[in-house]
Amino acid sequence: MRREKPYVTPTAQCSIERSLEVLGERWTFLILRQAFAGTTRFADFQASLGVAADVLTRRLTKLVGAGILEKSEYRNPGDRARADYHLTDTGRGLVVVLGALQQWGDENLPLRKGPAYGRRDRRTGDLLSVAFVSDGGNVVPIEEVTIVAPTP
Amino acid sequence: MRREKPYVTPTAQCSIERSLEVLGERWTFLILRQAFAGTTRFADFQASLGVAADVLTRRLTKLVGAGILEKSEYRNPGDRARADYHLTDTGRGLVVVLGALQQWGDENLPLRKGPAYGRRDRRTGDLLSVAFVSDGGNVVPIEEVTIVAPTP
Repeated sequence: MRREKPYVTPTAQCSIERSLEVLGERWTFLILRQAFAGTTRFADFQASLGVAADVLTRRLTKLVGAGILEKSEYRNPGDRARADYHLTDTGRGLVVVLGALQQWGDENLPLRKGPAYGRRDRRTGDLLSVAFVSDGGNVVPIEEVTIVAPTP
Repeated sequence: MRREKPYVTPTAQCSIERSLEVLGERWTFLILRQAFAGTTRFADFQASLGVAADVLTRRLTKLVGAGILEKSEYRNPGDRARADYHLTDTGRGLVVVLGALQQWGDENLPLRKGPAYGRRDRRTGDLLSVAFVSDGGNVVPIEEVTIVAPTP
């Protein structure tokens, strides 16, 4: 039986678990993907994802409760008020998680014609990857990463 | 109504969606967390997570089918053969996703006493973060990241 170096020592305080209490479900991540794409209206989330209205309502409510989306109202002239959902700063921080999921999918569940799109720097157009980096800005290969050590 | 710069343009080829077909569920990520912690046996996954055996069987089978875990057999002297599950290289690549989830949880769903543990370089002990980096190794702030542009 092989032994592998553990990457993670799970504890009751594990933040992966806390994060998944909010995010651990396919629709939630896809709603977030749409929010990152600029979708803000209930009807647009529903149309783009083909998700049932009651499921969408529950997921949006959970994301608002977790401070990931904020709900506001808008009203077109002559129309009734409608809800609008925007990413908060907390929500925008999830782009690292979505970028990591996308990168893994591109590498491990690739399309024959290659990735549909890349992660880029808006300013320079540089292709970006999601990686572990040290405080000094050095990229660290994943074999050298450990999530074991308690913070001293 | 505010307008935000979109980060993502979703398409039918979106690899976030393909990744979530395999991973978009809380137990799956927690099983992976245990695998990264060195858990390999069915009984140990079950004991550490408190997950129902039928759910665990389905999730492990899906992860084996996706090439994230590989199943082998081991046998203790005088005992029957048992299944053992190990991360493949494809599975080990998910440490970036788990690290990103953990980092977001530590920042946004913090414990009063601070993070339970940090991400570190095994060689130097340096604290690590999960970030977007360019080919040249420069860290790019998330406000400057776009996942819109199709690969030219």
